[in-house]
Amino acid sequence: MEILEVGPRDGLQNESAIVSTPDKVRLITRAVQAGVRRVEAVSFVNPRLVPQMADAAEVMERVPRVEGVAYAGLVLNRRGLERAVAAGVDEVNVVVVASETFSRRNQNCGIDDMLDTWGAIAADARSAGLRTTVTIAAAFGCPFEGEVAPDRVEEIARRAAAHGPDEIALADTIGVGTPDRVEVLLDALTRAAPGARRRCHFHNTRNTGYANALAAVAAGVDTLDASVGGFGGCPFAPAATGNIATEDLIYALDRMGVPTGVDLASIIDAANWLAVRLDKPVPALLGRAGIFPGTP
Amino acid sequence: MEILEVGPRDGLQNESAIVSTPDKVRLITRAVQAGVRRVEAVSFVNPRLVPQMADAAEVMERVPRVEGVAYAGLVLNRRGLERAVAAGVDEVNVVVVASETFSRRNQNCGIDDMLDTWGAIAADARSAGLRTTVTIAAAFGCPFEGEVAPDRVEEIARRAAAHGPDEIALADTIGVGTPDRVEVLLDALTRAAPGARRRCHFHNTRNTGYANALAAVAAGVDTLDASVGGFGGCPFAPAATGNIATEDLIYALDRMGVPTGVDLASIIDAANWLAVRLDKPVPALLGRAGIFPGTP
Repeated sequence: MEILEVGPRDGLQNESAIVSTPDKVRLITRAVQAGVRRVEAVSFVNPRLVPQMADAAEVMERVPRVEGVAYAGLVLNRRGLERAVAAGVDEVNVVVVASETFSRRNQNCGIDDMLDTWGAIAADARSAGLRTTVTIAAAFGCPFEGEVAPDRVEEIARRAAAHGPDEIALADTIGVGTPDRVEVLLDALTRAAPGARRRCHFHNTRNTGYANALAAVAAGVDTLDASVGGFGGCPFAPAATGNIATEDLIYALDRMGVPTGVDLASIIDAANWLAVRLDKPVPALLGRAGIFPGTP
Repeated sequence: MEILEVGPRDGLQNESAIVSTPDKVRLITRAVQAGVRRVEAVSFVNPRLVPQMADAAEVMERVPRVEGVAYAGLVLNRRGLERAVAAGVDEVNVVVVASETFSRRNQNCGIDDMLDTWGAIAADARSAGLRTTVTIAAAFGCPFEGEVAPDRVEEIARRAAAHGPDEIALADTIGVGTPDRVEVLLDALTRAAPGARRRCHFHNTRNTGYANALAAVAAGVDTLDASVGGFGGCPFAPAATGNIATEDLIYALDRMGVPTGVDLASIIDAANWLAVRLDKPVPALLGRAGIFPGTP
């Protein structure tokens, strides 16, 4: 099972405290030293709208370049792609939102236009030698429109697949999914894009995130997103928690005999380190409860 | 799906603040008004060892007696059973620990002796017209011995089943289970006790509690324990969280189309009320994140 560490991007982006460039690099370095082989390190969105990510190029200049480690950057337009190529990311991740209202509010752009933008980005990214991945956001529900029909997610996946992504991800952006819906949407994704790898992105906003992640594993998903410490949050529910935590996910997978290659104790250390930087407690539970079974 | 509300017993027992008898009755009344039909209301253990439960008889005197609502009391010996009968509970729950060390430390009694005690309690409880249930504690792991073999749990279940319980429960007392183990142990329980109802009791200590609960539902379990607000904790990991929360469990089941008959908003209200009494935040996430989809 591949863990895509999204703490440096999705985690920090939803934290109010601006983290310094050296600390972002330290976080990424700690994840890589723990064994993570894929990191969503940065995003190349408008720095006026997302100041936490304004230093994307500087972060990418300093990340450890280790054989077998890939860095992804989120892009939403061709200007972002140009910055991503210049910064030297290994892959770009384009987000298409499954709800029209959320898409317009979040990306100032409807779904149709975003799919066209994705097509243009895909062609240019491939020319530049980058891997491409599309994340279908709000696939399990929308904060503005409510329920999102699986048929709509399947249709978006089909249209996104036409531009040949290496991978398509289903994201439960606001944490409203349940395991049964994970199965339904993964089946839809396989129908829509039989040639693409499948990835899932869960938030634990309502305590279903880990159940969803393990359901995705049972359904044969290759890659799961997680964030060191479970930091981050949800802009639509200010008191809510963020991404599923890397350490809590790895713990469950370890106990189920699913290898990730990531060292649990090192991730717990990284989460405790980040908690000091963010001046808030670690949302993940494993650091508080302790690894079981403990060392004798 | 039947929800056994264990907040008044397992939840409060692990809270340091002593809750008054009227507040315990208010908590139980709120759960019943929300639609809960089965409550572990009290325990009849040594009041010097567990002062939080010293008022068990007084609580049982004042709980609302509603058609179809059953109250359970935990008992560990015949003296406890006598008190339970006198207090007018509808069912008694006897705990047998799956690890020898934990059994001796927790109940001052080895597994063999506890199974004998259970047999004596079962006979007397049946004579008194009470339902009986056995909970196999630490079935997923022990804080002292580490891993607990499924074969041992199956053997304990088989010996417990010989005394004819109405129900046998598997308890992940310290929150170390994963969904694959839930399936294995439920299969073992069915082999060992084909005539007994199956119940599961999960803690979310390491963020696997809800995944485990939903795995148990998928495996056909009739009843799940949960605690309003997810209060309580784990004496072996002082910073850890407690039982899975009634509202977060019901939310997931609601969205999966599994009816519980319990009103989500009323449970969230009860959790917020209890948070004031205990002077601590609600561990459950739903009250913070909000019900999805929201009312239009």
